[in-house]
Amino acid sequence: MAGTIAISFPIPLVTLLTDFGTADTCVGSMKGVILGINPEARIVDLTHDVPVHNIRSGSYLLHTATRYFPSGAIHVAVVDPGVGSARRPILVSTSTQHFFAPDNGLLSDVLAEEPDAEIRELTAQKYFLAALGPTFHGRDLFAPAAAWLTQGEPLDAFGPRITDAVRFEIRRPVMDKGRLIGEVRHIDRFGNLITNIGHAELRDLTDMDNWLGVQVKVGKATVTGLQRCYADAKPKKPAALVNSDGRLELFCKQARADTCAKAKLGDRVEVRAPLPSRPLQR
Amino acid sequence: MAGTIAISFPIPLVTLLTDFGTADTCVGSMKGVILGINPEARIVDLTHDVPVHNIRSGSYLLHTATRYFPSGAIHVAVVDPGVGSARRPILVSTSTQHFFAPDNGLLSDVLAEEPDAEIRELTAQKYFLAALGPTFHGRDLFAPAAAWLTQGEPLDAFGPRITDAVRFEIRRPVMDKGRLIGEVRHIDRFGNLITNIGHAELRDLTDMDNWLGVQVKVGKATVTGLQRCYADAKPKKPAALVNSDGRLELFCKQARADTCAKAKLGDRVEVRAPLPSRPLQR
Amino acid sequence: MAGTIAISFPIPLVTLLTDFGTADTCVGSMKGVILGINPEARIVDLTHDVPVHNIRSGSYLLHTATRYFPSGAIHVAVVDPGVGSARRPILVSTSTQHFFAPDNGLLSDVLAEEPDAEIRELTAQKYFLAALGPTFHGRDLFAPAAAWLTQGEPLDAFGPRITDAVRFEIRRPVMDKGRLIGEVRHIDRFGNLITNIGHAELRDLTDMDNWLGVQVKVGKATVTGLQRCYADAKPKKPAALVNSDGRLELFCKQARADTCAKAKLGDRVEVRAPLPSRPLQR
Repeated sequence: MAGTIAISFPIPLVTLLTDFGTADTCVGSMKGVILGINPEARIVDLTHDVPVHNIRSGSYLLHTATRYFPSGAIHVAVVDPGVGSARRPILVSTSTQHFFAPDNGLLSDVLAEEPDAEIRELTAQKYFLAALGPTFHGRDLFAPAAAWLTQGEPLDAFGPRITDAVRFEIRRPVMDKGRLIGEVRHIDRFGNLITNIGHAELRDLTDMDNWLGVQVKVGKATVTGLQRCYADAKPKKPAALVNSDGRLELFCKQARADTCAKAKLGDRVEVRAPLPSRPLQR
Repeated sequence: MAGTIAISFPIPLVTLLTDFGTADTCVGSMKGVILGINPEARIVDLTHDVPVHNIRSGSYLLHTATRYFPSGAIHVAVVDPGVGSARRPILVSTSTQHFFAPDNGLLSDVLAEEPDAEIRELTAQKYFLAALGPTFHGRDLFAPAAAWLTQGEPLDAFGPRITDAVRFEIRRPVMDKGRLIGEVRHIDRFGNLITNIGHAELRDLTDMDNWLGVQVKVGKATVTGLQRCYADAKPKKPAALVNSDGRLELFCKQARADTCAKAKLGDRVEVRAPLPSRPLQR
Repeated sequence: MAGTIAISFPIPLVTLLTDFGTADTCVGSMKGVILGINPEARIVDLTHDVPVHNIRSGSYLLHTATRYFPSGAIHVAVVDPGVGSARRPILVSTSTQHFFAPDNGLLSDVLAEEPDAEIRELTAQKYFLAALGPTFHGRDLFAPAAAWLTQGEPLDAFGPRITDAVRFEIRRPVMDKGRLIGEVRHIDRFGNLITNIGHAELRDLTDMDNWLGVQVKVGKATVTGLQRCYADAKPKKPAALVNSDGRLELFCKQARADTCAKAKLGDRVEVRAPLPSRPLQR
């Protein structure tokens, strides 16, 4: 794949995703560094409220958002409890986008979807800021490197290719005795429970015609049938739908599904097809 | 009015106002969609912390902020509990600006001030994203439509004119037995109580010379006299002034007025002119 | 210094730092005003979550972030409990950057580092917005003035030079009986305690070789040795390092240092050199 990824930046676009929050000026100083190197850079915040040090949530959120960005976008992701330790900084280039991040699993979801991505260890000191300390790679290392990439520096100049980037396991739903078993992958600000079960797996379980009879269990909640949209559900009752990212989601109109279902991140999700339409055993 | 609204975009400017919060990447993905269609677009966040599903607050905040934007600005507002249901998406064009929003009353304040605005149902599928589900119109429908409008697509191409857009009643203050009766329209982050009573109504009640004697009642608080600015009031005592949007506002220096006055959104506000200067009955 | 500061704006860059929060649309309306005057302006948020009315925190955060911005950057800082009172609005120009702020001490840290900065009282009404009230100088005065400065208006046009700007004392660490005595200057979102003690003072106390033996006391915590990075410390134990801004910082891996050490803003910080390497008295 080396050398096959073309970089084109009609407008240099850099996104930021961190767990820094916005009460301090960490993010502000990263933007200052980027604009000092490329005053033309457009900087977009994905979120700075990834749960602190939660690499799995960061990976999920990064992947979900960046799919909607145009070709050439450069993403800087920093959820980095091990900053300054031996963990490497990396640059991952898919066929269309680039990701700067610590090598701690934060790019696991991206890499799971893009197995042919080029991964480089970020070693080129010339692209880093002269730092007062080793504890803020977001500002001193990832931000300036991203800004230099917008200036058209070649990928190979950033560091050597590597193949052993850290990835955590992205658990996929499995079929077990005719039931689809998954997990709660993310809980959003409305309390909605977003699962790792997608359109494809649901279609594999049963026909779309039968979705009215599908049964979903999460935590203390059991719901029957998939709604088309949030508004179609009864107020304050747990309900389910396939959400805007194509994932099975439990929600609770005018209330929080995590509270209603007493469910938390990682909890088991069980989906059962309508009984008459399929045999229980496959 | 058809065809009379000219679009001019020296720099394409799109603002976003939602109740999505910034902890998830909903807003980030909307920005990705916009920049994918028009990489030159300038995107400005108005706020993403409209109280969840609170259409009245959203309407107030949208109207208050957008008055300060230049001609040609395009606003995307999404507070949308009914997303995916039969409620229509609309595009409202005033003589200078454009507003994309669900047709659920979110543009009530804008429409109250701009009775001649053109309202269109947003029906042109070609401006929408191919969506995985019907639950995120902010990203799949409003954001791309706004981006296409920045590209100079004609207004008529977005959908047919309609006249029956949903509007909730914007309550106006009334005179009752010589008193001006209004309500708390908004509570800001400092706890200030912003009322629906404006400069004009106060002048109607009494002369500006008499403002030192005006009496204002909200919740448990009764204050006499209008201050010129926050600093002029005594600490921790409820006080009132005409704020930077020309509205009567209750505040409490070094404390929260909502707490001091035990007042909440929608509470009655009563203003009485100084007794000697006017008869009680008009 | 008059007339010696050249303004160059390849791209007009305006940053905003306030205590307005982002739940209201105050910040949004400031951006609208700026873009109405200069549609080419790039606006960057430093933070809008300075603790409400906390001028000292605002001054610290502003100074920390703006050091990373390029020459020509224009900063608007508004933490302004006295808005509308007799306090003056000012414009401070260092050799490379410009700062608009109320004259209430908010620029103390900037001025402490830039003693030759030009300070002007902002008096030129022509650069202000026609305001409905005197309570929102961020939108009606500082934002438009900053936007006009990006348009190349000369500094002298904004108002006369002054020398008596309000500054609060920036406390410096002192040596007392061989110990370095400082204070907690800032607590960040992770609960880290950032002190007013820098690299230079620590080097003055002892050789870098001895940093493993240095003893730091803050609140209820006493820690020995400075870590190189957060990851090097033991979980849930208070530890210390020199942070990315070159300041001594107490932290607590996987926990909050402010909670662990029962420490708060302004608390005394005491640093003692390793006993054998130096005499206790200097």
